Amino acid sequence: MSFRGVVPPLVTPFRPDGALDVAGLEENLERLSSHAFSGFLVLGSSGEAQSLDEDEKLALITAARRRLDGRPLFAGTGLESTRATVAFTKKAAERGIDAALVLTPHYYRASMTDEALRRHFEAVADASPVPVYLYSVPAFTGLPWPPGLAEALAPHPRIAGMKESSGDVALLGRIVAGVPASFEAACGNARVYYPALCVGASGGVLSVANCAPAASVALHAAFMAGDHARARLLQAALLPLATAIGTRFGVAGIKAAMDAAGLHGGAVRAPLLPVSAEGREELRRLVDAAQAAAAPA
Amino acid sequence: MSFRGVVPPLVTPFRPDGALDVAGLEENLERLSSHAFSGFLVLGSSGEAQSLDEDEKLALITAARRRLDGRPLFAGTGLESTRATVAFTKKAAERGIDAALVLTPHYYRASMTDEALRRHFEAVADASPVPVYLYSVPAFTGLPWPPGLAEALAPHPRIAGMKESSGDVALLGRIVAGVPASFEAACGNARVYYPALCVGASGGVLSVANCAPAASVALHAAFMAGDHARARLLQAALLPLATAIGTRFGVAGIKAAMDAAGLHGGAVRAPLLPVSAEGREELRRLVDAAQAAAAPA
Amino acid sequence: MSFRGVVPPLVTPFRPDGALDVAGLEENLERLSSHAFSGFLVLGSSGEAQSLDEDEKLALITAARRRLDGRPLFAGTGLESTRATVAFTKKAAERGIDAALVLTPHYYRASMTDEALRRHFEAVADASPVPVYLYSVPAFTGLPWPPGLAEALAPHPRIAGMKESSGDVALLGRIVAGVPASFEAACGNARVYYPALCVGASGGVLSVANCAPAASVALHAAFMAGDHARARLLQAALLPLATAIGTRFGVAGIKAAMDAAGLHGGAVRAPLLPVSAEGREELRRLVDAAQAAAAPA
Amino acid sequence: MSFRGVVPPLVTPFRPDGALDVAGLEENLERLSSHAFSGFLVLGSSGEAQSLDEDEKLALITAARRRLDGRPLFAGTGLESTRATVAFTKKAAERGIDAALVLTPHYYRASMTDEALRRHFEAVADASPVPVYLYSVPAFTGLPWPPGLAEALAPHPRIAGMKESSGDVALLGRIVAGVPASFEAACGNARVYYPALCVGASGGVLSVANCAPAASVALHAAFMAGDHARARLLQAALLPLATAIGTRFGVAGIKAAMDAAGLHGGAVRAPLLPVSAEGREELRRLVDAAQAAAAPA
Repeated sequence: MSFRGVVPPLVTPFRPDGALDVAGLEENLERLSSHAFSGFLVLGSSGEAQSLDEDEKLALITAARRRLDGRPLFAGTGLESTRATVAFTKKAAERGIDAALVLTPHYYRASMTDEALRRHFEAVADASPVPVYLYSVPAFTGLPWPPGLAEALAPHPRIAGMKESSGDVALLGRIVAGVPASFEAACGNARVYYPALCVGASGGVLSVANCAPAASVALHAAFMAGDHARARLLQAALLPLATAIGTRFGVAGIKAAMDAAGLHGGAVRAPLLPVSAEGREELRRLVDAAQAAAAPA
Repeated sequence: MSFRGVVPPLVTPFRPDGALDVAGLEENLERLSSHAFSGFLVLGSSGEAQSLDEDEKLALITAARRRLDGRPLFAGTGLESTRATVAFTKKAAERGIDAALVLTPHYYRASMTDEALRRHFEAVADASPVPVYLYSVPAFTGLPWPPGLAEALAPHPRIAGMKESSGDVALLGRIVAGVPASFEAACGNARVYYPALCVGASGGVLSVANCAPAASVALHAAFMAGDHARARLLQAALLPLATAIGTRFGVAGIKAAMDAAGLHGGAVRAPLLPVSAEGREELRRLVDAAQAAAAPA
Repeated sequence: MSFRGVVPPLVTPFRPDGALDVAGLEENLERLSSHAFSGFLVLGSSGEAQSLDEDEKLALITAARRRLDGRPLFAGTGLESTRATVAFTKKAAERGIDAALVLTPHYYRASMTDEALRRHFEAVADASPVPVYLYSVPAFTGLPWPPGLAEALAPHPRIAGMKESSGDVALLGRIVAGVPASFEAACGNARVYYPALCVGASGGVLSVANCAPAASVALHAAFMAGDHARARLLQAALLPLATAIGTRFGVAGIKAAMDAAGLHGGAVRAPLLPVSAEGREELRRLVDAAQAAAAPA
Repeated sequence: MSFRGVVPPLVTPFRPDGALDVAGLEENLERLSSHAFSGFLVLGSSGEAQSLDEDEKLALITAARRRLDGRPLFAGTGLESTRATVAFTKKAAERGIDAALVLTPHYYRASMTDEALRRHFEAVADASPVPVYLYSVPAFTGLPWPPGLAEALAPHPRIAGMKESSGDVALLGRIVAGVPASFEAACGNARVYYPALCVGASGGVLSVANCAPAASVALHAAFMAGDHARARLLQAALLPLATAIGTRFGVAGIKAAMDAAGLHGGAVRAPLLPVSAEGREELRRLVDAAQAAAAPA
């Protein structure tokens, strides 16, 4: 169970009436399971966790747990208050997740001092039945990750690692230099996955792994094999897709790209808007290009 | 029922064990009711709505509704998804709120285009049993309010107004110029309440009204009476308190200032941190100075 | 000589070949002199000072000084280094300016601590033969004005006031509260001129005064006469023009609006681009609307 | 002559009286010339170009040209206006620079559209007697580099490459993917030099090369030799020094670190402040650690 490899942050399929489509999630898991992922994440930012209620979240965990048998299952459990995060992490652990990904609280951002964040993560880790991974994604939270915080938290016996999604490779390098080798510093930004590995990232939680699984896994494998030329080529092949999703299409883009790849993407929940027909066509081309690069030479 | 006057965005008191302190809320309402407020708001940003679960939120509404008899009660009902916002707005309406304040969704901020926000507010207003007020607070959401959006939404029969908390007086002036006189454009930033009234704000939803109610109401009354000299003096007296809360102490500061003013402020929910002893002393002085300015000459 | 009234930050006309058009400046001064301005500023941001060399700057000062006889002439003299600012301020003073407007250095913005800025302004004021006004314009410099800096510098015998152009009325209110009445805190953002006056601004350095001089001066006069209704109306009339210039058209927009008003606007220096024909038409309408509001009732 | 290797952006030494110390520059060049740099840059951001007048700039170029004999000499020649940039680039070329580094104009940042920047760079390149390199450094300019601009400009016969200093490795990867192999995309941020090379950067213009020349050159050599383990180690050794300079100490920190390394750093021009004694000690330790990593195993 680890972030030492690629982990797809699974999207949450919805039925045409807007209800949760658990069967869609199960089929996606089935399809994605043929790739050499090191684990699966539900309830991340790509999973529209912010738009799900607690019952839906627990149903997703239960379904994923059942499908994955013994393979590692991570779930995003972070909420705005420490109290609610602890409570939900416990419920998620009861449903069988292997580890919890805890997002930085951020609504009261001016109050999220280093000390406030440190206490929050410590309190959650103290109470969590399962290992905890820190999670920073400034593009969504508006909150930069404070220098030194991962290093201060790494000694906690229940804090296993971090997902750092800013795309700031230097930050990841600094974190890697300041934590023990057992701390898993995962890159959460597919635009810089290869350079992040170069500076010591343990693996990646990559939204493009939902729609370009072969290329994502191949990049990791090439790096592990010391094949920098191929890793660089695969990164270049993934970059346009990752950039399109990261800067223009968002979660709706991941889902449209999954549709293009023959998986269950489908609709997003409002206020997110669907991708236009032109956008879907562009994403289809980007998926094809990324996956083509992963084909055996 | 209106934002034509001052509305305090009520804080949410907690018991020492961290549970909701409904009696504390009721005592605050009792005390604040002696001031000439035009209504009361629960579940705003000052109310730590982001840290409350749904049962707690509904309990607060129920208690406030009971205490206020016929006086106007507003509640923040905005959540990240349109679906959840509609559902909760209906539940809040069933508990008797007079109007709902709907925060801009913001987690997927890059996807919150003008169209996404417009559709969100329209869908909520279409479904809401009670009038809806738009709510923008970039300091918390990281999302600037798009030019023209209030103007586009103002014709909706169930959209009654807006709370604009950025402190950008020019933005408020532009909104006022583009909406009918019946649209209530309230200022949500006490640092600029008097200048906001000068450019046409209908009233204010002011966190300082929790701890400096007399000065807040007096400022509004002075402006309505055409006494600009007194309004300016009261604004100057409120500015240091409002600045201290807005830029340094946050919600914990509002609560500490209420403690200083003899109301139930009390603890905040983590990850928010309590105000230090020095900070509490500073806030006490600022409250005293603000309230002194409101004393009859 | 003062910022107690409206001061136009004059644009710098260029000839078709790109050279300085001193005669154009003189004609603008002639035309604008019929309005009740409290002074004139050359070499501000609206004057494209960043695109002028020293000889051109001194030629502009000389021409303006000659035209204005005894009327107050201000000049922007701030450069990135303290040394260069001191040297140029002295040269400008020799050409007869009445006071110098000193922009915050900003290229090394992370190094522009409160202390760095304080020492810079003190050193310039110590060496300047003429009174000094502080100048902050975050839209151009990317540097917010630090709380307390104006208050710390106000006692300096040669620091006479400040031009604060952020549009943050609360900041202006705080500055006014912390400096002696002799310190002139001018608003440099026409979108909030009326509310800025309400919280104590001494006057305004307003780019719209170049193209809508009558409305700008009338707003100030209405406020001074206690006619808040008319001041608010004039502010509302200037707001669309000021917003269009401030957020979309920039300096090229001021110049196009001057052309529309019958003054010498003309070309901007590259890399600034000229306003399109549609933009010019829009600016013409906005100028007409603003000036119409100033017509006697 | 190229950015295919490491280029130090030379600092500008000053004498105790604040005047230019040309002899100091010459000694630094003498000392640094023993390292395998691919060229030298004067008048970059590290060279306090913003605080130098034209005579000083030309004197620096002349001195550097004389000292370097045939080795490549680059100079920063970008100014706010196209006209001034062209004029100064020509003067610099007359003094013998091999190529000009042209900074994005940025004061009127809202007006710096893709088209405005493209036209600026094209006009400068059209007029320049020497090859031109584009230069983006958002930490100083506040201006992000627009997607597609380097790609659009790369075909120009006199545009030879770019210095991209944001630290955004994904951006560099995108640029590399969109330009011909002859276009030299140099990394201007030492915090990510190794990962930047991994995604295709041609070389680096690194401020730490002034104070840790051996480690900077060794990192490049290790990468070229395919020794990723050593490159990663050297990057990790340079990261704390580069971070300290980049985020806390600025140009004054580079100079203090040079003093620690036995070169002529010396004073900065105000408003930059000198590094404190504690800061100098910290920088000495960071320089020692970085250089130790470069020692032969």
